[in-house]
Amino acid sequence: MASVNTILLFVFVFSFISLLTVCNAVRYDPTWDSLDTRPNPAWYDESKIGIFLHWGVFSVPSLLSEWFWMQWEGEKNKRAIEYMSANYKPDFTYADFAKDFDVDLFDPNEWADIFNASGAQYIVLTSKHHEGYTNWPSKYSFSWNSMDVGPHRDLVGDLATAIRSKTNIHFGLYHSLFEWFHPLYLRDKANKWKTNEFVTSKTMPELYELVNTYKPDVIWSDGDWEAPDTYWNSTEFIAWLYNDSPVKDTIVTNDRWGNGVMCHHGGFLTCSDRYNPGVLQKRKWENAMTVDSQSWGYRRDATLKDMLTMESLLATLASTVSCGGNMLINVGPTKDGRIIPLFEERLRALGVWLQLNGQAIYGTKPWTHQNDTIAKNVWYTSKKNTDGGLDVYAILLNFPDPGQFVLGAPTASPDTKVTLLGYSDPLTWKGSKGISITIPAIPFNRMPCQYAWVLKLTNLF
Amino acid sequence: MASVNTILLFVFVFSFISLLTVCNAVRYDPTWDSLDTRPNPAWYDESKIGIFLHWGVFSVPSLLSEWFWMQWEGEKNKRAIEYMSANYKPDFTYADFAKDFDVDLFDPNEWADIFNASGAQYIVLTSKHHEGYTNWPSKYSFSWNSMDVGPHRDLVGDLATAIRSKTNIHFGLYHSLFEWFHPLYLRDKANKWKTNEFVTSKTMPELYELVNTYKPDVIWSDGDWEAPDTYWNSTEFIAWLYNDSPVKDTIVTNDRWGNGVMCHHGGFLTCSDRYNPGVLQKRKWENAMTVDSQSWGYRRDATLKDMLTMESLLATLASTVSCGGNMLINVGPTKDGRIIPLFEERLRALGVWLQLNGQAIYGTKPWTHQNDTIAKNVWYTSKKNTDGGLDVYAILLNFPDPGQFVLGAPTASPDTKVTLLGYSDPLTWKGSKGISITIPAIPFNRMPCQYAWVLKLTNLF
Amino acid sequence: MASVNTILLFVFVFSFISLLTVCNAVRYDPTWDSLDTRPNPAWYDESKIGIFLHWGVFSVPSLLSEWFWMQWEGEKNKRAIEYMSANYKPDFTYADFAKDFDVDLFDPNEWADIFNASGAQYIVLTSKHHEGYTNWPSKYSFSWNSMDVGPHRDLVGDLATAIRSKTNIHFGLYHSLFEWFHPLYLRDKANKWKTNEFVTSKTMPELYELVNTYKPDVIWSDGDWEAPDTYWNSTEFIAWLYNDSPVKDTIVTNDRWGNGVMCHHGGFLTCSDRYNPGVLQKRKWENAMTVDSQSWGYRRDATLKDMLTMESLLATLASTVSCGGNMLINVGPTKDGRIIPLFEERLRALGVWLQLNGQAIYGTKPWTHQNDTIAKNVWYTSKKNTDGGLDVYAILLNFPDPGQFVLGAPTASPDTKVTLLGYSDPLTWKGSKGISITIPAIPFNRMPCQYAWVLKLTNLF
Amino acid sequence: MASVNTILLFVFVFSFISLLTVCNAVRYDPTWDSLDTRPNPAWYDESKIGIFLHWGVFSVPSLLSEWFWMQWEGEKNKRAIEYMSANYKPDFTYADFAKDFDVDLFDPNEWADIFNASGAQYIVLTSKHHEGYTNWPSKYSFSWNSMDVGPHRDLVGDLATAIRSKTNIHFGLYHSLFEWFHPLYLRDKANKWKTNEFVTSKTMPELYELVNTYKPDVIWSDGDWEAPDTYWNSTEFIAWLYNDSPVKDTIVTNDRWGNGVMCHHGGFLTCSDRYNPGVLQKRKWENAMTVDSQSWGYRRDATLKDMLTMESLLATLASTVSCGGNMLINVGPTKDGRIIPLFEERLRALGVWLQLNGQAIYGTKPWTHQNDTIAKNVWYTSKKNTDGGLDVYAILLNFPDPGQFVLGAPTASPDTKVTLLGYSDPLTWKGSKGISITIPAIPFNRMPCQYAWVLKLTNLF
Repeated sequence: MASVNTILLFVFVFSFISLLTVCNAVRYDPTWDSLDTRPNPAWYDESKIGIFLHWGVFSVPSLLSEWFWMQWEGEKNKRAIEYMSANYKPDFTYADFAKDFDVDLFDPNEWADIFNASGAQYIVLTSKHHEGYTNWPSKYSFSWNSMDVGPHRDLVGDLATAIRSKTNIHFGLYHSLFEWFHPLYLRDKANKWKTNEFVTSKTMPELYELVNTYKPDVIWSDGDWEAPDTYWNSTEFIAWLYNDSPVKDTIVTNDRWGNGVMCHHGGFLTCSDRYNPGVLQKRKWENAMTVDSQSWGYRRDATLKDMLTMESLLATLASTVSCGGNMLINVGPTKDGRIIPLFEERLRALGVWLQLNGQAIYGTKPWTHQNDTIAKNVWYTSKKNTDGGLDVYAILLNFPDPGQFVLGAPTASPDTKVTLLGYSDPLTWKGSKGISITIPAIPFNRMPCQYAWVLKLTNLF
Repeated sequence: MASVNTILLFVFVFSFISLLTVCNAVRYDPTWDSLDTRPNPAWYDESKIGIFLHWGVFSVPSLLSEWFWMQWEGEKNKRAIEYMSANYKPDFTYADFAKDFDVDLFDPNEWADIFNASGAQYIVLTSKHHEGYTNWPSKYSFSWNSMDVGPHRDLVGDLATAIRSKTNIHFGLYHSLFEWFHPLYLRDKANKWKTNEFVTSKTMPELYELVNTYKPDVIWSDGDWEAPDTYWNSTEFIAWLYNDSPVKDTIVTNDRWGNGVMCHHGGFLTCSDRYNPGVLQKRKWENAMTVDSQSWGYRRDATLKDMLTMESLLATLASTVSCGGNMLINVGPTKDGRIIPLFEERLRALGVWLQLNGQAIYGTKPWTHQNDTIAKNVWYTSKKNTDGGLDVYAILLNFPDPGQFVLGAPTASPDTKVTLLGYSDPLTWKGSKGISITIPAIPFNRMPCQYAWVLKLTNLF
Repeated sequence: MASVNTILLFVFVFSFISLLTVCNAVRYDPTWDSLDTRPNPAWYDESKIGIFLHWGVFSVPSLLSEWFWMQWEGEKNKRAIEYMSANYKPDFTYADFAKDFDVDLFDPNEWADIFNASGAQYIVLTSKHHEGYTNWPSKYSFSWNSMDVGPHRDLVGDLATAIRSKTNIHFGLYHSLFEWFHPLYLRDKANKWKTNEFVTSKTMPELYELVNTYKPDVIWSDGDWEAPDTYWNSTEFIAWLYNDSPVKDTIVTNDRWGNGVMCHHGGFLTCSDRYNPGVLQKRKWENAMTVDSQSWGYRRDATLKDMLTMESLLATLASTVSCGGNMLINVGPTKDGRIIPLFEERLRALGVWLQLNGQAIYGTKPWTHQNDTIAKNVWYTSKKNTDGGLDVYAILLNFPDPGQFVLGAPTASPDTKVTLLGYSDPLTWKGSKGISITIPAIPFNRMPCQYAWVLKLTNLF
Repeated sequence: MASVNTILLFVFVFSFISLLTVCNAVRYDPTWDSLDTRPNPAWYDESKIGIFLHWGVFSVPSLLSEWFWMQWEGEKNKRAIEYMSANYKPDFTYADFAKDFDVDLFDPNEWADIFNASGAQYIVLTSKHHEGYTNWPSKYSFSWNSMDVGPHRDLVGDLATAIRSKTNIHFGLYHSLFEWFHPLYLRDKANKWKTNEFVTSKTMPELYELVNTYKPDVIWSDGDWEAPDTYWNSTEFIAWLYNDSPVKDTIVTNDRWGNGVMCHHGGFLTCSDRYNPGVLQKRKWENAMTVDSQSWGYRRDATLKDMLTMESLLATLASTVSCGGNMLINVGPTKDGRIIPLFEERLRALGVWLQLNGQAIYGTKPWTHQNDTIAKNVWYTSKKNTDGGLDVYAILLNFPDPGQFVLGAPTASPDTKVTLLGYSDPLTWKGSKGISITIPAIPFNRMPCQYAWVLKLTNLF
C-alpha cells in the first residue's frame, strides 16, 4: 500500500508548487523591514569565493591606492603631491589621466581563464568607483566613461561577455553611490542632503541603466556613508531590484546603502573592509579583502612584502568560510588590462588547492564549532553528504607533527572515519569526546599540498 | 515768463519717472506674444559692431571648421577621416582632443586690448558649442569642461574679468542648446521630443548657471533647430531672463530658440549665418559673419584667399548698418589662446577706420534710403545731430574719380554742407533733388583712408 | 673699313672662349686667397630676392626665437624658464619637443606656390640649426633627425622636389657648423680647438652628404664664430664645392666659415644679421632679414606690431638692391608645416608689387648713385636696356605731392624719358643736371600701387 | 729539523712575489693567442651567480621581447605590426617610444636591496642594446641617450652608485657592438666591412668612455656576430682593457667579440643564450638565462606559465655550477623602473635557499663527477675545507623517499660524514664505493626547504 507515500508525494509537490507561486508572488516594500526578509539566492552562499576587481582611471597613476585622487587633491598626501610635481606639468588634473587608461593588452578571455582556474564562483568588477568614471558607456556620464576617453571600449560589457561565454562564474558589479568631486553631489552635501539632484540625475539613473543593460548577479554598493539612505533612494532601488528588475531571481546585494545601514541591512553584510569577525555570524556576510595588503587598485609601487602569501590567504579563507562568510579576493588589474603574474600565481595556486580541498569549502555550512577547542589554527566547515549524514571538515593551518593529534570539538562514533584530503590511506584514531588522530610520517613527496591541509571526519556522533 | 517751460519740464520728468516705474513693473509671460513686446536695451542697437569668438575643443584639431566632430564622425567627411587616420591612433576619440586644449599663451588682457582697438562694442564668446564642452566649470558638465580637462581655467570668467576691467565693451555669451552626441539628447530625440531629460538635467540648468554666474549682456542661443521651443522650455527661460534674472535690464538675446522660431521671435533676429538682406528690416537684426570665410572656429588650414579683405569687411559693415543690422564679426582663437596676427591686422585696421569714420556707424539709424538711387555701392546711415537736425552719411565703397559725383537720394537745402570725413576742406556741390558733388583731385598723401570713404551731408532738406 | 672692328671682335670672342675654357679648367686651392677669386654664378646677383626659412625643433615651443634651447638652458632667460615650468613636467628636455614637430599640414607644393607668387628667385631652408637636429635623414644624426623623430619625413628632400618641379626658384640650404650642446663639440671647445672630432665625425660628413644628396644652389653657413676656419676645415670644403662637387657650376656660398672670416671671405658677404649698410659695397652681399622683426623661427607670441609692414619691407628692398645686395626675407614655418596667413599676405603683396615694378629690381646693377642727392627716400638701380643704353630706376618710398619733384642725381639728355611704372602717361620734366619732374594729380583709382613707386628714367646723359 | 720546511716556505714566498711582479708586468698583445692566456680575476669564478638586467627603450612597448624594433620593422612580425597599428598613429617610429621611458619609480637602492637579498654576487646591466640607445649620457649618442630623452637620468651611473654603496656586488655592463639600424653601421655592412666608420666614430669611442667613466667589473659584449673581430677592433680594445684600463686587475669579459669568436676566445665563454652543456667544460663559461623564459626585456604580456619555477631555476643553477659555469639570471626591469613582484619573489626565494645552501655554490669547484652515476637529478660541487680536505656537495633536485638512497659516485672512508644542509641530525650511511644513505622520515615542518636539497659529504676517500 504505497498510497500514503503517493499522497504524501502529491501533497509535497503541491505544496512546493504553491510555495513557488507564493515566492514569485512575494513583493517587497521599499523598507528595510521588508527587504531584509528576502532570502539570498542559494548560489551566493554556496559559492564562498569571489574575485573583486578594482579598475578605473586610478589604475593609470597606479600609486598609493584607488583613492589616489582624494589622497592627492583632498588629503594633500605628501607622497602623492611630490609624485605629481616631479612627473607632471603643473596644471595636470586627475581627469587628464583618463587618456592613458589604454587597456591595450586587455583580453577578457584571458581573465576568464585565470578566474576560472582560481576556483572562484563569482566576480565583482568596479563599474564606477568614487572618481565617477564609468567603465561602461553610460548615458549619464558623457565624456567621462570608458567609451569616450581612454579604453574606447565597454569594459563592463566585454568582461561580462567573456565570463558568461567561457565560464560558469557569476558576474557582479561594484558601484559607488557618491563621487568625491561631482559638483552636484557637493552641492547636495552643502545643502545637508535637503536636495538630491545628484541622486536623481546621476547615480540612480546610471544604476538602473547598469542593471538593465548588464543583468549582474551582484550589486556591490559603496560610497554611501556620508548621506542617509533616504537621500540615496536606496530602498526604492532595492525593492525594484527584488520585485521587478530583470535579475530579481538571481541578484544579491550588500549592505552599503546609506549612513548607518552597513552591517545592519541588505542582502549580505560587509561591515568593514577586510571584515573577518572570527566567530559565527547570524546573517550572511562577506569578507572583502585584497592580495596586495595595502590597496584595492593596482599599485605599481607594491613590493613583495605587501603581497599576501598563500598561507595567509588560506588562513583567511578557512576562518571566513567557517564563520559563515564568503571571501571576496581583490586583485587590481593594470591600466593596460592585465592581471599581473604574481596575482595570477596566487589565484592559480588557490585553484590547485581547491581542486584538492574544494569539498571543504563549496556548498558547506558552518558547523557547531568554528575553531577547535584544543588544537590551534583549526577551522571547521560541514556539509550534508549523500547518505544523509554530515561530513565535518577540519582545516589545519599548520601540519601536525607525526604522532597523536587531538581535536577537542568532534565526538566520534564507532563508524567515524578520518581522512586527509589528497592522502590515500585513512588515518587511525581513538577517543570519542575529543578524538586523537594518528598523524603518520608522510614522506615529503606524498604530502597532498604545502599549506592548509584538510581532515575530513565522516560519521561523527 | 519761463513758467511754461518749467511746467513742461516738470511734466516731462514726471512722465519719464512714471514710465520708468511702469517699465520696471512690466513682466513678461512665457509666450512669444509677450516676449516680443520687450524693447531691446538701447546699448545693443547703438553698438553696431560686435566680435564673435568660437573657441572650444574644436580649436585643437583646428581643421575644416568648428563642426569637426560632426564632420568626422557624423558626416564621414573624407578629409576629416583621412586626416584622423594619418595622424592619430585608431581608437582616438574627439574627447581625447580636450587634453591638448592648453591655452598656454592665453592672455585675456591682450584680447581685450585688440577688441578695444577694433572699435567693437560687444563680444560674444562660445560658452559651449555643439560638442557640449563647457568653457566654464559647469556643475552640469563634470569632467567635460575647461577646468577639468584641457585649459584648467575658467575661460568664460577670465575673459569676462579682462573685458570688464580693461574696456567698456559689453560681454556676451553664445550657448548651444543641443549637443550632437549627448546620449540624453539623442534619447529625447529618438523619443520624438516627448521626453526632455536632456533639457531638464543639462541644458537649462547650465543656462541658468551661466547667467547667474557671469551676468552676460547677450545670450546668443544656437543649436535649437531640431526641436520645438516647447521641448527646450525656451520661453520660460527668456521670461526669467527678462523678469527676474540679474541682467534683466541689460540683456539682449537672439532668435534661435526652437524649430521655426528663428527670424520670427526673440530679441534680435539672426535668420541665418551671414544674414545680410540688403534692404531695411522691420525688426532689429544681426549679421553674424566671419573673417575666415569658411569657418567660425580657427582653422589651421585657412589660407590668405579665405580671409576677408578690408574692402569686403567694410562693404558688409556699410550694408548691414544701413539696413538696421548689427555686424558680429567672428574670429576664431587658437587652441593656445591667441588671436592670430592676420585677424589682429583686420581688427586693428577696422579700428583705425572707425576712429575716422565711426560717427557714420555708432548710434546711427537707417535713413530713408539704404542705397543711393544713382551711385553704385553707396550706403546711407543717419544720426540726429546736436542742432536737432539730421546728419546723413553716405558710405562710398569706391572712391569716385575727380569731378562731378552725383548722389540721387539726398535733397539739398541751401544750408547743406558736404564733407569727406578725414579731409579738411568742405566739398562743393550743386543741385537739390539729387546732389552733384565736386570730388577734388586729392593727392595720394592726403587721402583720409584707402577704403570705404564717408561723405557727411548736413542740413539736407 | 670695318676690318679692325671685325678683327677686334674676333679677338674678343676668341679670348672669351679661351677664358671660358680656362675658367672651366680653373681649380681653387683651399685658401681664401684662391677661393675669393671665384666669381659667383650669375643667377645669384640677378635674383635679388630670396626667402629664408627657419624650421626645426624650435618650431615646436615657438616662443622667443629659434634660439629657444640656448635661451632656456644656456642663458636662463626668465620668460623661457617660467614658460617651461608652467607648461611642462619638471624634467622635460628640449629633445622631448621633437616628437611634436609633426608637420601634419605640410604641403610643399603650397609653399612652392606662395614662394613663386612672392617673386623670390631662391629659397634657403635650414637643413640643421644650432640645435643639431637635421631636417633630412642624415647618417650622422641617428635618432635626431626628421625621419626618426617628429615629422617622419625628409623635409629637405620633400621641399627640394616641390620647388624644382613647380617653380624656377633656386633651392638653397642653411647649415649650422656648430651645435650648442653637442658633447663632442663641447669637448673640442674645452680643448681650445686642438681636437676636432666633432668636425671630422659630424659636421663635415653631414655637409658633404647634404651637397651630394640634395645638390643645393646655396650653402648658407652659420654657427662658425666660436672657432677658427682651420678648426672647421672650411676652405677644404669650399674648394671641394667649387672644384669637384656636383654643384660646382651653380653653387654660391656665404661668408660664415670661421672666426674672423665673416664679412671678409667667401662667396657673398652677410656681415651681420639684417646687414643693410646703406652705401655701395665692393663685393656682393646679402641682407638676411625677417618679417617678424623679433625672430627667425616662427613665434606663436608674435603680434601684429612685430610684423614688418609692406612699406618697411619695400624700403629695405630698395636700399638693399641699390647698394648691391640681395635681400633674403625670412619667414618661419610653423611646427605643423604652414606659412601663416600674415606671412603669406606679405609675400603675395610683394609679388604683386614686383609684377609691376620687378624690372627695377631683377637683374639690375647699382647705379652711380644709390640715394638721390636732393630728394629724400629715393633709391636708384640701373639696367642695360636692349638699345644698349642704361635705364635708371628711382624707387620713391614716399609719393610726391602733385607738382614739381626734383631729383638731383640724374643728368637728363634731350632724349630722356620719365615714366611712373604702372601709370600709362609719360611724365613731363625739365632741367638737366638735376631733373624736375611734374607729378600729376593722379586720381586714387589710377595709382599704380600704394607703396614704393618707381620712376623709370630712360636715355639719361 | 724544520729548516727544510723553512727554506721551502721561503722559496715559495719568494717565487710567489716574483710571480706577482711578473704578473703585474705581463702585457697582452692584441691577439687572441695572447689575450686568452690571461687568467680571469678570482672573484668571477667564486661568484657563481649574477643578475642580468635588460633595460632600454624596448621596455616601453614591453611586448614580444627586447628585439621589438627588429621584430616590428625588420622581421615584420605579425603581432608587432598589429599591435602598432591598433595602438599608435601611422607614422609612429621606434624612436618615439623613448619619451615614455620615464622610470618614474626607479629607486636604485631598492634594486640593490633585492639583488643583495638574492645572493647574487654580480650584476650586468645593458648599457646599450642593439637599438643603440645609451643608458648613460654618452658623448657619442647625442639626443639618443637616457639623459637627453626619456628618463633624464644617468641610469648606468645611478645604479653603479647604489650597488657600490649598498652592497658588495660586482657591477658589470652589457654592451652591444652593433646597432640594428644605425646608418653608419649599415653602410659599413653594405661595404662588406671594408670601411669601419661606425666602429671608429661610434661603438669603440663609447666603449672606452663607458670603461673610463663607470669602471665596470664585467664587460659583457654582444651584437658581434655579423662582422669579424678585425672590423670591430676587438682585440685592441681587450688588450687595452687588460693592460692599461682603470679596471685591468678586476675586469672580466666574455667571448662575443666578432664572427667566429664566441665559444672560442675571450675571458669566459657564453657560447649561446641559455648555454647549459650538462658536462664539464675546459674553460670558464657562463649560462646567461632568463626568469621569463621567452624574453630578456620585460614583457607586459608574460604570463605565469612563461615564468621559471623555483624548481627549474635551482635545477639550472645546480647543473651550471656543477659543470664549471656561472649562472647569469636575467630579469627585465619595467619602463617605470621596477623589478616586478614575481621576479622579486623568485630572487628573494633564491636568496633564502642560498642562505641555507650557499656553501654548496659559492667558491666551489667542479668535482670529479658532475652527475651521480646511479641517482637521477643529482649534481655535485666540491670545495676545500679548512682541514685541507674536500667537501663534496650533492644537490638533489628530488627529495628521496625515506629509506636507503644510493649515490654511486662517492667513495666513502671510515671518517665520512653525511649531513642534509638545514637538518640538524647527521645521516647514517653504509657502503664505500657507492654510498647508501638512510633518508629519515622527516616531518613536514622540519624539512629544511621545499626544493633542491643538499647533502654534504665530508671526508670521502
